[in-house]
Amino acid sequence: MPPAVIDIQEKFALFSVQWSPRVIAEINDYQVKLARLEGPFVWHRHADTDELFQVIRGSMEIAFRDGVVSLREGQLCVVPKGVEHCPRTEAECLVMIIEPRGVVNTGDAGGDHTAENDVWV
Amino acid sequence: MPPAVIDIQEKFALFSVQWSPRVIAEINDYQVKLARLEGPFVWHRHADTDELFQVIRGSMEIAFRDGVVSLREGQLCVVPKGVEHCPRTEAECLVMIIEPRGVVNTGDAGGDHTAENDVWV
Repeated sequence: MPPAVIDIQEKFALFSVQWSPRVIAEINDYQVKLARLEGPFVWHRHADTDELFQVIRGSMEIAFRDGVVSLREGQLCVVPKGVEHCPRTEAECLVMIIEPRGVVNTGDAGGDHTAENDVWV
Repeated sequence: MPPAVIDIQEKFALFSVQWSPRVIAEINDYQVKLARLEGPFVWHRHADTDELFQVIRGSMEIAFRDGVVSLREGQLCVVPKGVEHCPRTEAECLVMIIEPRGVVNTGDAGGDHTAENDVWV
């Protein structure tokens, strides 16, 4: 059997929980995740890896200690390894995240926003 | 300075050559590439890595020895490591490709479609 077609919007329709990434694909040991973001997240960093955010629908900001990046649909940004950042949105924003398998959403910060990892949809 | 915003459509507007991927971002040692595809490509495989195709605009097929996958805008597919495949389109299709740095577009096949690697836009 050839590999599956993965439809991003169909996958988003399967979950409504926010700040809880869902894995939709793997490229070797990297994962492609979808997440619904709304409101402010927590400041955190990932000591061992870069992290890509691509906006699928809506808009978001990623705050850094030295400035803010604004992203809208069709735009992406790579948060460098070890750099503190804080995603935030005014309304719900649908994003695609790409990073190595095993990365926890809140990085070094922990707390209530920490989602179960490696959950597929 | 915070990291750059990368706009997928703006990046596509900067090149018109087909079958010649352009790097727009890196996540650690993985690259995010954009490519314009039109017509048939060559059968090939990548012995050491999976390869993700996401359609940004238009539609494409990826032929496998055991079937054909059809992808349209907002859909993606991961070609498994070592599996022969042949991308093809009827009209120009804009795709995003994610794979480790160093992967050559024609894999083991070589030939006229082999593009210079690691070209950024």
